[in-house]
Amino acid sequence: MKRHLKIAACAALPLCVALSSHAQPQPRPEQAIKYRQSAMTLMGAHFGRLNGMAQGRIPFDATVAADNAHLVALLAKLPFNSFGPGTDKGLPNRAKPEVWSEAGKFKEAVEAFQAEASKLDAAGKSGDLAQIKAAVGAVGKTCKACHDAFQSER
Amino acid sequence: MKRHLKIAACAALPLCVALSSHAQPQPRPEQAIKYRQSAMTLMGAHFGRLNGMAQGRIPFDATVAADNAHLVALLAKLPFNSFGPGTDKGLPNRAKPEVWSEAGKFKEAVEAFQAEASKLDAAGKSGDLAQIKAAVGAVGKTCKACHDAFQSER
Repeated sequence: MKRHLKIAACAALPLCVALSSHAQPQPRPEQAIKYRQSAMTLMGAHFGRLNGMAQGRIPFDATVAADNAHLVALLAKLPFNSFGPGTDKGLPNRAKPEVWSEAGKFKEAVEAFQAEASKLDAAGKSGDLAQIKAAVGAVGKTCKACHDAFQSER
Repeated sequence: MKRHLKIAACAALPLCVALSSHAQPQPRPEQAIKYRQSAMTLMGAHFGRLNGMAQGRIPFDATVAADNAHLVALLAKLPFNSFGPGTDKGLPNRAKPEVWSEAGKFKEAVEAFQAEASKLDAAGKSGDLAQIKAAVGAVGKTCKACHDAFQSER
């Protein structure tokens, strides 16, 4: 967990050293938005494959499921440090003001999602479709809860 | 290698089963373009951190370097199966016609990049800055070679 967070902390800040350093240049808002949206796009594509298997639209393949679950869990660590102050504008994006005005709740929702994504990784490694289905459902709920609260309608 | 390719093969095709199946729906070109551009964005951000360390612009941290190298190697498997026929248009993108007209050369360039990205992962795990610097340089060359040949100027 700690190691993945280290990846994420400065993911969109190529020049930064640590978030706690005030001497480091900050990424432009458009860079941060593009970065987090890219991570979301990849998560959506790979979670979509697992969801398809869970729903029976895609034949179950344990290896493919495990690989996609691992990737989703890794990607889940990336985007959420790119919602820094001032990143509400810069590129079109659907982040609601509540991301910043209710930062504590946003953090809770993100952590709930990341926890379920980690469980999905474990379920993928089990190779058991029933476990994967349950984990996909749980991840999906945390996606939806966060989107409902913090993402504007299209 | 095989497992990562399984992730990549249908990464942008949530409904697909295998590339060899003609019965599966294909992703819309704009989905494929968005997917591959997202993977490139994340690769650029994370490779940028390693490059910063290699150039001395970012203080070297072996753990952060290893994590970013691993992520770059994983991401390197993702975008290149999303250059299917018809994905030259649909969203603004900088893929040159040579991606399709010289598909063999494109494949070679991609595989050269992926091979160096795997070596970067190994160098990251070594924790040795000299090895990481060398691997970053080698990856950078394969990035540039592919971009020069297959990506239009802005």
